[in-house]
Amino acid sequence: MPGRPPRADAQANRQRILDAAEHVFGTGGKAASTEEVARLAGVGIATVFRHFPTKAALVESVLVRRFDRLRAHADALLDADDPGAAFFGFFGHLVADAATKIAIGEALHDLTGGGDTEGDTEAVQASLGLRRSFGALLERAQRAGAVRDDAELPEVYALLVATSRAASQAGLDDDVRARMLAIVFDGLTRR
Amino acid sequence: MPGRPPRADAQANRQRILDAAEHVFGTGGKAASTEEVARLAGVGIATVFRHFPTKAALVESVLVRRFDRLRAHADALLDADDPGAAFFGFFGHLVADAATKIAIGEALHDLTGGGDTEGDTEAVQASLGLRRSFGALLERAQRAGAVRDDAELPEVYALLVATSRAASQAGLDDDVRARMLAIVFDGLTRR
Repeated sequence: MPGRPPRADAQANRQRILDAAEHVFGTGGKAASTEEVARLAGVGIATVFRHFPTKAALVESVLVRRFDRLRAHADALLDADDPGAAFFGFFGHLVADAATKIAIGEALHDLTGGGDTEGDTEAVQASLGLRRSFGALLERAQRAGAVRDDAELPEVYALLVATSRAASQAGLDDDVRARMLAIVFDGLTRR
Repeated sequence: MPGRPPRADAQANRQRILDAAEHVFGTGGKAASTEEVARLAGVGIATVFRHFPTKAALVESVLVRRFDRLRAHADALLDADDPGAAFFGFFGHLVADAATKIAIGEALHDLTGGGDTEGDTEAVQASLGLRRSFGALLERAQRAGAVRDDAELPEVYALLVATSRAASQAGLDDDVRARMLAIVFDGLTRR
């Protein structure tokens, strides 16, 4: 098509825009602008809007990609040698990673007015996919005797979300975050 | 002074306004109106503004009173017979109570633009007072051998805030909340 870059270039542009948007919305939240994203990606604003018709569509794509990447990470750990270490390590990784994801999630929440969070948007589906894979890691750690049998996914996931938010919103320093997680992990460990 | 009610009536009005505001802002957050507060308290809007010149001043007074009440509760537990039961019981009480307090805190945050949360407003001072009394309960439970010695106030308070927010924001049902707290309490218990 005249005036459009070839397909491979378009794909590379799309990835660069998503990388830039992940950085910009992950640090600036809803205050960040699409102009900043275009500048950081080295493309014009028209190119951004060709790939993502609205700011909300862009932010949602960033969030979906991030959830999918974390889920792939969890799935790769499903045949780790030490199921307990894999579960607790991934839990800690999610908490450490949370500040960025929460900023992006809140930007999306604000852009969509928060009405879609219960629905089946792509981001909600991707988030449920991550939850399922986290649940599979939990089950495997329980079968291996590393995590208490009576802990079920709803309360373990609630603790994951709670400690993630605490670490990012309260701006906990790394030591306090580590000691907070040590208490939770002790509580989860099988006696 | 002509046109003003006697002192005892003024004091009773003030308490009724605070009771009404605690209910209205605790359930409606920032969307709640001073008119609703006046209606529920059975006073005119002018009376509300005579006691509390701004909506933010009213919400802050509600929050201060709530923190002070919780601190008094903690202080009363400082000579309980079973220091471990007192600590864990109060922790659970704060989490169960959190939804209302968080709604009021967020209303205040929005009304003041969030700029004052680090400063020495009355609400911040009252919140620090509660934190100190909670810390005293923690220390006493540790001296009694009910809570592990290596848990320090910053991470224990971070867990309190984290589980409180999880219980209120995620709308956890009572069973999941109880099982989430059981895991945290197990992690805090001395081996």
